[in-house]
Amino acid sequence: MVLVGSHLDSQPFGGRYDGTYGVLAGLEALRSLDDAGATTLRSITLVDWTDEEGARFSPSLLGSGVVAGTIGLDDALARTDANGVTVAEELDRIGYRGTFDSSSLAVHRCFEAHIEQGPVLERTGTDIAVVTGVQAIRWFDVVIAGQDCHAGTTPHPDRRDALVAAAGLIEAVDALATTVNKDLRATVGEIRVQPNSRNVIPGRVRLAIDLRHPEPSVLDQAVTQLRTAAADIAERRGVTAEVRPVLDMPPTVFDAGTTELIRSTAAGLGYSTVEMSSGAGHDSMNVASRAPASMLFIPCVDGLSHTEAEDIRDDWAVNGAEVLLGAIRQAADERPDLDSHHR
Amino acid sequence: MVLVGSHLDSQPFGGRYDGTYGVLAGLEALRSLDDAGATTLRSITLVDWTDEEGARFSPSLLGSGVVAGTIGLDDALARTDANGVTVAEELDRIGYRGTFDSSSLAVHRCFEAHIEQGPVLERTGTDIAVVTGVQAIRWFDVVIAGQDCHAGTTPHPDRRDALVAAAGLIEAVDALATTVNKDLRATVGEIRVQPNSRNVIPGRVRLAIDLRHPEPSVLDQAVTQLRTAAADIAERRGVTAEVRPVLDMPPTVFDAGTTELIRSTAAGLGYSTVEMSSGAGHDSMNVASRAPASMLFIPCVDGLSHTEAEDIRDDWAVNGAEVLLGAIRQAADERPDLDSHHR
Repeated sequence: MVLVGSHLDSQPFGGRYDGTYGVLAGLEALRSLDDAGATTLRSITLVDWTDEEGARFSPSLLGSGVVAGTIGLDDALARTDANGVTVAEELDRIGYRGTFDSSSLAVHRCFEAHIEQGPVLERTGTDIAVVTGVQAIRWFDVVIAGQDCHAGTTPHPDRRDALVAAAGLIEAVDALATTVNKDLRATVGEIRVQPNSRNVIPGRVRLAIDLRHPEPSVLDQAVTQLRTAAADIAERRGVTAEVRPVLDMPPTVFDAGTTELIRSTAAGLGYSTVEMSSGAGHDSMNVASRAPASMLFIPCVDGLSHTEAEDIRDDWAVNGAEVLLGAIRQAADERPDLDSHHR
Repeated sequence: MVLVGSHLDSQPFGGRYDGTYGVLAGLEALRSLDDAGATTLRSITLVDWTDEEGARFSPSLLGSGVVAGTIGLDDALARTDANGVTVAEELDRIGYRGTFDSSSLAVHRCFEAHIEQGPVLERTGTDIAVVTGVQAIRWFDVVIAGQDCHAGTTPHPDRRDALVAAAGLIEAVDALATTVNKDLRATVGEIRVQPNSRNVIPGRVRLAIDLRHPEPSVLDQAVTQLRTAAADIAERRGVTAEVRPVLDMPPTVFDAGTTELIRSTAAGLGYSTVEMSSGAGHDSMNVASRAPASMLFIPCVDGLSHTEAEDIRDDWAVNGAEVLLGAIRQAADERPDLDSHHR
């Protein structure tokens, strides 16, 4: 079969289009094929992957994770939401607990359309991004420990202010994109301060760091500079700074044939394209471990996602759905002997 | 009467000694006078000021605020704790709701002993700080607004990262003690980040800033530099930074005669002394608006307060209580015609 789809669970984060676009574009492609009375050699299945965002259950990419084997089925079914309801209970309640064994899934190719979630397509006026893979991701926590004390009574030379040290590291992480590689993404998205009270010098800070690049060797350089910066700042500010690895996700390289099918379909329809490595994680990373998979991106306004301001233009949506339809149809009509190496 | 005391409510913050020391030192002084069969011209009253820390009710300095008139009695009685219990209800429950009208309070002099809450006495080996007043305090919130977006997909040149901007301002605030005045205290104790999620570039940050110095003109300079730094960083990082005044508390200058009584008593007992402006707020600020007041500080280990690590040495505690006893006794025996200008 040919798989197409994305996920519908990004609304809690303000994702009005996000994965929803890919599901609706896939639905529109299937309806168009039906409307045209078209038949294909292979079946086409539309999928809404459960809990891609981890918005309700954890971890994220839950449904596709079961298919990829990164999480066991029983483990996935036992996961609970904030109210203690399990995935199994909720699937039973809504009548969506099926019996299909995903290990028997025989996917010829898999496609996913998505908004870019970045500003490149819109800024360059490009219609479609042909997604060649997903960046490698490394997460670190940095725990900075100084000494909390009274803000009014402690002279500055006596201070071991964990937040001032953290501030230096936040700037150093941001600067990695300048000093290491311009395509590096280096972000401190989360900070926890203790005691976090106006008139107390902060004694302890935890920073959550997200580093991404398609090349692991570039991330290696970034991590080395991160560790050096943390040690230098700790020395200068009289604090300790412990750099703790949290996640090390290798890059995903999408199937070249599937990627080329998207590129050639878009070109054939007259759309401008650019190759892009996805900055965000997607279910297609998981599917790619089981079947030839690739993605296409359409532009989104100001590169925004996961916010109420997230928006797309109708013509962008149509362009992406046209390319998706064309690629699906070609894949669904590919002869078995052309892809005997696929399950 | 002569007032002596402090407050017992700092335990929730780990304040094992803090205000508790002043109450116990005052109690010991009164017991010593009793043990010696001493009589004094004036009465001596020991006071445990309610809710100095604001640990249970708000605002802080609640009890002394009623005496100073900074908060009305009815308003104070109606204040609620986290469970909705009012001050009035709780005073009734524990049987401590008195009928005395504090506006008729006739205080000859007021004394308060306290731990320094800073490292100066211990580091310089000084026994007693004679407290000449309380620093002026100015509080500001700085609200930095950028744009939250996906950490994996947004190239650095397109970012308007509110946390990176905040980091620059945190360092700039800390540096004010170098650029403006070495005795300035300039602290960012609190930070709130939205959305505060590892893989989302922060769109909004609020910093809570605490500036202190005995001289308002020095604070004026600090505020000017703070505003300039905020504007510069906002420009450079593509964000907005709004500096909002929250509190502007003028300095308190303690009564020279009362301060001298502490100094001369300490010197007469052979203790080394240093004059100091208090970095922290105290009930004596409020009392000083109604009566001649002053304070003495004893050292505390590593300058720490409001933490479980807060500690004092027995000999420091004894030294302070000796000075307090001597000063109280002298004040209580001062002749009425020497202080006819006091109420």
